[in-house]
Amino acid sequence: MEPNLDLDRDIPVLDWTPHLAVRMEGMKSSAIRELLKLTQEPDIISLAGGMPAPEFFPLREIEEACRHIIRQDGAKAMQYGATEGHRPLKEYLATTAHKYGVPAVPGNVLLTNGSQQALDLIGELFINPGDFVLTSRPTYLGAIQAWNAYQARYHTVNLDDDGMVVDEIEHAYEKALADSGRPPKFIYVLPNFHNPGGTTLPLERRQRLAEIATKLNLPVVEDDPYGELRYEGEDIIPISTLIPERTIYLGTFSKTLAPGLRLGWIICPEILMQRFVQAKQGADLHTSTFVQYVAGDICQRGLLKPHIKRLRQVYKERRDTMLDALAEFWPEGSSWTHPQGGLFLWARVPEPINTKDFLQEALAEKVAYVPGVNFYPNQDGGHNAMRLNFSYCAPDLIVEGIHRLGAALKKTLGY
Amino acid sequence: MEPNLDLDRDIPVLDWTPHLAVRMEGMKSSAIRELLKLTQEPDIISLAGGMPAPEFFPLREIEEACRHIIRQDGAKAMQYGATEGHRPLKEYLATTAHKYGVPAVPGNVLLTNGSQQALDLIGELFINPGDFVLTSRPTYLGAIQAWNAYQARYHTVNLDDDGMVVDEIEHAYEKALADSGRPPKFIYVLPNFHNPGGTTLPLERRQRLAEIATKLNLPVVEDDPYGELRYEGEDIIPISTLIPERTIYLGTFSKTLAPGLRLGWIICPEILMQRFVQAKQGADLHTSTFVQYVAGDICQRGLLKPHIKRLRQVYKERRDTMLDALAEFWPEGSSWTHPQGGLFLWARVPEPINTKDFLQEALAEKVAYVPGVNFYPNQDGGHNAMRLNFSYCAPDLIVEGIHRLGAALKKTLGY
Repeated sequence: MEPNLDLDRDIPVLDWTPHLAVRMEGMKSSAIRELLKLTQEPDIISLAGGMPAPEFFPLREIEEACRHIIRQDGAKAMQYGATEGHRPLKEYLATTAHKYGVPAVPGNVLLTNGSQQALDLIGELFINPGDFVLTSRPTYLGAIQAWNAYQARYHTVNLDDDGMVVDEIEHAYEKALADSGRPPKFIYVLPNFHNPGGTTLPLERRQRLAEIATKLNLPVVEDDPYGELRYEGEDIIPISTLIPERTIYLGTFSKTLAPGLRLGWIICPEILMQRFVQAKQGADLHTSTFVQYVAGDICQRGLLKPHIKRLRQVYKERRDTMLDALAEFWPEGSSWTHPQGGLFLWARVPEPINTKDFLQEALAEKVAYVPGVNFYPNQDGGHNAMRLNFSYCAPDLIVEGIHRLGAALKKTLGY
Repeated sequence: MEPNLDLDRDIPVLDWTPHLAVRMEGMKSSAIRELLKLTQEPDIISLAGGMPAPEFFPLREIEEACRHIIRQDGAKAMQYGATEGHRPLKEYLATTAHKYGVPAVPGNVLLTNGSQQALDLIGELFINPGDFVLTSRPTYLGAIQAWNAYQARYHTVNLDDDGMVVDEIEHAYEKALADSGRPPKFIYVLPNFHNPGGTTLPLERRQRLAEIATKLNLPVVEDDPYGELRYEGEDIIPISTLIPERTIYLGTFSKTLAPGLRLGWIICPEILMQRFVQAKQGADLHTSTFVQYVAGDICQRGLLKPHIKRLRQVYKERRDTMLDALAEFWPEGSSWTHPQGGLFLWARVPEPINTKDFLQEALAEKVAYVPGVNFYPNQDGGHNAMRLNFSYCAPDLIVEGIHRLGAALKKTLGY
């Protein structure tokens, strides 16, 4: 065999299917991410994604932090680091968690590549093929995508305007036990400003969930990407405060600092940390040392909190703009959640309209949203609902987008 | 249940063992990473790790790139990005691969969090529990750690001074078939400056490996973290050039730019790319947009190649220093590989000495290395060998470290 270096040579095409692992059979690309590609044409008003407002990224602070870090700690920030993460950043995150009564110490904080990696590591630690996870319907799709890779199955409980209907958990547990012959692996909950629901779980439901999880001996995965972005009402303590011994808490800098850094964290019982570290070592050794130093610098110089305060003002205005526009432009029979924070609300349209089909009409009007069914792990609902994002577009575009959607809805309904 | 916010409250300890997935039973923390923790005391001369020389990180170039990117493309560099990676960086990597005849296009390049994530994604795509992987003995431990999470098993072929003894592959294939009832999943090979062996696979062996892989219909994973760091001899074309249709090539910026960025890449057949993208979406959505923009800026401004040229001079000097010191200070009956590049050599000590036991004596003399047995996936060899790194320590420390090891060896041998 003589090496042929011609770049245009004919190369045979291998059939890779027989080489793939069984787990790949059920794995699909995220419907949402594929949809988002379609909706990123510049003239589309996208209420579909979950992106922060790029015009408010703290670029000056990040540039300063990069310079600081490279000049003061460059050799360390560019070197291999500990799997557990950058100690000063872990200290900051543990201390921040204390204000809600979460018993965090640096030793039970693990830095991850955004919350998505935390979800993936949780799948690796807990999910055997065919195991059940208990979650709300609708729920966060990134979690489903992460756990589908471990061949998880799902039993769900309803989401009402106060979030997960926790009293349905025991019934879902029984179904999982009946279907798989073993208990489900954990309860997945988004207590603050649910994605996609926009709902907030009241303290009483958090307490009830803690009781149920303890009674059933189930771990709880508490996903809290938006907790710092509250626009009204009082903070509610996390489930981690109530049952720290069985809760894995997930936080992220993606909504408060910048998603392009890819930086999130896990707070979990110390006894479990070694397992996460083992899994993370195999997954990618550690999260970017440089990015951790940069985020740590911003946090330690006290620049994150004022930035979050500013974001709260910006996003509150956008949320209010969207709520007002919905009230003004949408047809009777529509309804929507009133999120106290976060990036999303959940809108329901009159019965004859299927939001998956209606998307074509919306796109014809150059507006995008995510159809509700995408957030149902078993595809058993959401046909008249959609997720609307209010963080990414400027207020005038939000008004225009909601207006166009309202007009298209009315047209479809025969107004 | 009333919320108790006292941080010093008594918290029960949950037994998490029954909640864990089966795959966690066989998973251990990397012996090497645990060892490295012990050897990071400041007065230890560490020839153990695989770290680049921190004094040669291109900090000025990285700082400039950060400033450029944040000022010119800040809003994009901080936002969510495509799972596939940053297009200009993919173009650069594809074009760079062309000089070796690899038929790469941006569409078959995927950015990862270092090569370690590429190894993990390969495990996810291919390995069912109990599947066999064919590799050399010794081999790279990070790969074993990644694939142990997928419950892989290993059949191995020997490594001689010309690298993997490829003619043993068919026999290993037969053993895997006999033990598992199905073919092994792929051949894992480190052709350039093998870790830990320091060996380079000659062109003839690469061609033979390509023939064998084709005959057996096996994919090949070609791990090439050090290929750019050649100190003597001519570049040899990668296996990807010979059999691009069945080779998954792994590259990284960890040794040429900085490991703290955590940036590597996969080049694979385009037909397979969608599978990697699906797996990567679930794993962490995408690699840090910011870090990709920074690396892309450095590459596009032509700053990487002169930096690599400088590194080659630095590391060549350190390699030569180590080879000279070994010849001068080590006892008769010792031998070592002569690496043409990379960061490591493989040293064998006289028969009575077990390098795992001898490590205590080395540490007493404040020198660290990694015992050979750690690189044997089935722990069936390497008892008289060790891996020595020559990239991290300055030349005077290399001499001192090899001197101390030599003296301790002689003492143990009763000189």
